[in-house]
Amino acid sequence: MDIFFLGTGAGMPAKLRNVTSIALKLLEERGAVWLFDAGEATQHQILHTSIKPRRIEKIFITHLHGDHIYGLPGLLSSRSFQGGESEVTVYGPKGIKDYIHVSLSLSQTYLKYPLDVIEIDEGMIFEDEQFTVESLRLDHGIPSYGYRIVEKDRPGTLLADKLKEAGVQPGPIFRKIKNGEIVTLEDGRTIDPNQFLGPEQKGRIITILGDTRYCENAISLAENADLLVHEATFSAGEEKLAHDYFHSTTHQAAKVATKAGCKQLCITHISSRYDRNAWQELVAEAKEVFPNTDIAEDFKEINLPLK
Amino acid sequence: MDIFFLGTGAGMPAKLRNVTSIALKLLEERGAVWLFDAGEATQHQILHTSIKPRRIEKIFITHLHGDHIYGLPGLLSSRSFQGGESEVTVYGPKGIKDYIHVSLSLSQTYLKYPLDVIEIDEGMIFEDEQFTVESLRLDHGIPSYGYRIVEKDRPGTLLADKLKEAGVQPGPIFRKIKNGEIVTLEDGRTIDPNQFLGPEQKGRIITILGDTRYCENAISLAENADLLVHEATFSAGEEKLAHDYFHSTTHQAAKVATKAGCKQLCITHISSRYDRNAWQELVAEAKEVFPNTDIAEDFKEINLPLK
Ligand SMILES: [Zn+2]
Ligand SMILES: [Zn+2]
Repeated sequence: MDIFFLGTGAGMPAKLRNVTSIALKLLEERGAVWLFDAGEATQHQILHTSIKPRRIEKIFITHLHGDHIYGLPGLLSSRSFQGGESEVTVYGPKGIKDYIHVSLSLSQTYLKYPLDVIEIDEGMIFEDEQFTVESLRLDHGIPSYGYRIVEKDRPGTLLADKLKEAGVQPGPIFRKIKNGEIVTLEDGRTIDPNQFLGPEQKGRIITILGDTRYCENAISLAENADLLVHEATFSAGEEKLAHDYFHSTTHQAAKVATKAGCKQLCITHISSRYDRNAWQELVAEAKEVFPNTDIAEDFKEINLPLK
Repeated sequence: MDIFFLGTGAGMPAKLRNVTSIALKLLEERGAVWLFDAGEATQHQILHTSIKPRRIEKIFITHLHGDHIYGLPGLLSSRSFQGGESEVTVYGPKGIKDYIHVSLSLSQTYLKYPLDVIEIDEGMIFEDEQFTVESLRLDHGIPSYGYRIVEKDRPGTLLADKLKEAGVQPGPIFRKIKNGEIVTLEDGRTIDPNQFLGPEQKGRIITILGDTRYCENAISLAENADLLVHEATFSAGEEKLAHDYFHSTTHQAAKVATKAGCKQLCITHISSRYDRNAWQELVAEAKEVFPNTDIAEDFKEINLPLK
C-alpha cells in the first residue's frame, strides 16, 4: 500500500506542482489503484509513472473546484482508448454526475467499460471484505468532503503444522478454527483457536481530505490514522488569509494530526507563492506542532507498511 | 505573425505530443494570440512558452472531440486567476456553449472577464478592419470545421514628402489620396494617388483545419493559402484506416495543399503509433506530393513573414 502524489499544487497548474490528484496504490491488496481527485493533466502525470489507467478502480472526488475535476473526462476516456474494460466507480459531491455526463456526451465519448457515478453524502460510502470508506463534510464554502479509508483487520493465518502436531487432522474443522470458533474434538479435547492462529493483521487507516479550513470533521476522519493527507495552502501566520479563502495553514493541518492522534502527516495543496526554497520552511512549521510531518511533491510516494 | 504548435498528437496525450492546440500569434498585428482548439493541458504547455494567457483574444474550436476541448475550462479559469480582464470570444460547433457553461458553473468558476461563446455554422464568422475568418464543414463524422484566416490587404503608406515636393500642402486632401481617391488641386492639376502611395501590403492567408477525411471543402478553405495546417493522422498507404476513422493520410493532406495552390503545408495530429524515427518518413511521404511540407512538433514555431 502506497500513496503516490500526482499533483500537489493549489488552484492552478504551475511548473513545479500540478493541480491535485493522489493515487492510493492497492496493488498487493487488490491489484487496484484508487484516485482522489483528478485535476487537469492527471492523465499526463500518470504517463510518467508505473500506474496503469486500467488498474484504476475507484475515483473519489473531494469537491467540484476545477483544479480537482478538470482532468476527469480525459482520464476516463483515455482509460477506454487504452483498453480498460473493468468497471470504474466515481464518488463525489452532487453535480459530479452532470459534469461527467455532459463532458462525455458532448464530446461523443463512448466508454468501453461500465462507469458508475455515485453522488455521496456523509457516512459510509463503500464497504467490502477488505475496506470501508467513510466521508464527512469539511469547511470549504462549496461542499468539500474528506475520506477515511479503513483496511479491515485480518485474522491470523491458521498454524496447520501446529494443529497436526496436536493430532488434529485437516478437514472442515480447520476452517472453523480459522474463523475463531472453539471446537470440541471427537476425543473430547477442546481446541482454543487463539492457540492455533498467527497474530491478527491490523488494518491500516488513511485519511485524505479535500480543501478545507481547520475543522472538527477533519479530526474525526483522521482519528488514529496511519497517514493523514491534509491541505496546507498557506504558511503559519496566514490564518486570516486561509480563513478568507476557506483553506488551512501548516499549523492548522498539524493541529488536526495532533488532536486526531495520527501517526504521520503529509501536507499538500501548496500555493505556488511558495517556491522550492520555501517548502522546507513549511514542513518545519508543521513539525513544531506535529513532528512526523512530510510535505508532498509531485511524484513523491509514501509507503504504508503492514503493521 | 507566427504559428506556434502547443499540441500535435491524435486522440490521447503521449509523452512526445500533447493533444491538439495551435496558437496563431498576432502580437505585432494586434497584440493578441488566437488559439485553435484546446486539448487537455493546453494551459500546461503554455506555461513553457512566452505566450501570456491574458493575450488570448479568440479561441476557435474545430470540433467537440475530447482531445480538442478538454483543456478549455481550465485555460479559461486560469486566465481569470492570472488577472486577464479583456474579453475572450470562443467560436465552435453547436454544443460548445453547453460544455463551457456546465464546466464553469458546476465548478463554481466565475471569470473576471467577459466571455462570449458563439456557436458557428459555415460562412464568414468574423470580420474587422484587419482580418476575416471563414469556416466550412469538413468530413469527420461529427461536425468538424476548418478555418480560413485572411489578413486584409493594406494600402501603401502615403509618400508625404513626395507630395510636398510636388507642392501639395498637408490637409484633408492627404487623407483622400491615402484612400486612393483621384483629387483635383486648386491650380487645376490632377493627382493620381498611385503616384504618391507606397506599395500595397498584401495580406497573408492561413488555413487551419479540424480533423477530417480528404474533402473538397478543405481545398476551398486552403485556396492560395500561405500556410495550410492539415491533419495527417496516418501514413500514406493507410487510406482505408484513415477513411474508417474519419482521418487523413500524409498523401491526402499533401494533395489538398497541391490542389489548393498553397505555398506551404504543415501536417499535424500525428498518431502516437509513429515514433520520433518515423516522423521524417511521414514528411517525406507528403513531400512526394507537395514539396514544401513540414511536420508539426509540440513547441515548433513557423514564422509567416510579410509578403
Ligand atoms: Zn483546490
Ligand atoms: Zn483529434
